[in-house]
Amino acid sequence: MAHHDVRCTWDEGLVFTAHQDDREFMLAGSADESGVRRGVSPKKLLLTALAGCTAMDVASLLPKMRVPFSHIHISASGELTEEHPKVYLSMHVVYDIGTTEEYRSQVESIVEKSVTKYCGVHAMLEKVASVTHEIRLTGSVAV
Amino acid sequence: MAHHDVRCTWDEGLVFTAHQDDREFMLAGSADESGVRRGVSPKKLLLTALAGCTAMDVASLLPKMRVPFSHIHISASGELTEEHPKVYLSMHVVYDIGTTEEYRSQVESIVEKSVTKYCGVHAMLEKVASVTHEIRLTGSVAV
Repeated sequence: MAHHDVRCTWDEGLVFTAHQDDREFMLAGSADESGVRRGVSPKKLLLTALAGCTAMDVASLLPKMRVPFSHIHISASGELTEEHPKVYLSMHVVYDIGTTEEYRSQVESIVEKSVTKYCGVHAMLEKVASVTHEIRLTGSVAV
Repeated sequence: MAHHDVRCTWDEGLVFTAHQDDREFMLAGSADESGVRRGVSPKKLLLTALAGCTAMDVASLLPKMRVPFSHIHISASGELTEEHPKVYLSMHVVYDIGTTEEYRSQVESIVEKSVTKYCGVHAMLEKVASVTHEIRLTGSVAV
């Protein structure tokens, strides 16, 4: 069975260094007194995990299905409960793909495969929140 | 209701830039041909979210409960299913705190508060996987 490991080491206050895949990035619990946030929110990493995981499926499948594209922008948003522990009630993913309407059915098929078959993060998070998505095709020229 | 947003933009191949809290870091679907992984795994971000979220509670509560400490190292590991979509069956969090056995009951109380009350990521992920934890106190000198 595959095994994954990550760790976080404390720097100061509510700032940690996240160590993952031999790379590092900063986590911060909030902005400091000067309004600067010295790292990303751990909770929002769930949204980045969702957007990033399904993004890999899209980037892998578009060339396989011979869909030309100039960009892939995937955004994810989440609505939190007011009470502690604050959890996401819903998440919404927007697939903005730089291709034309001609390829809509292929893009829809790719997104469908990702959210129903391949994307493990989606499979996990749809058990805790309502996860919806939409597809926007914003390419205007042949690529 | 609080609303969170993140996005990922495609760079090339299976490499994306994650944009979160006005900061950026790289995501990669796998290592490239030379064995270099140009970004972190989106799926493992779920583990970093878990370690990081509970880490913020610990870093916030240790000073409040007057527990002296030299370090906080929090690691999270996960066991994946073999079949697609690959999801975590279980997760384990290790709290390695640089303090002495004298403060064990306070540390246990802090971790308990985090995993039952405050940590929203824990509250979400315990619905999809079995989440366990252990506490190691590795401080040897007064801090």
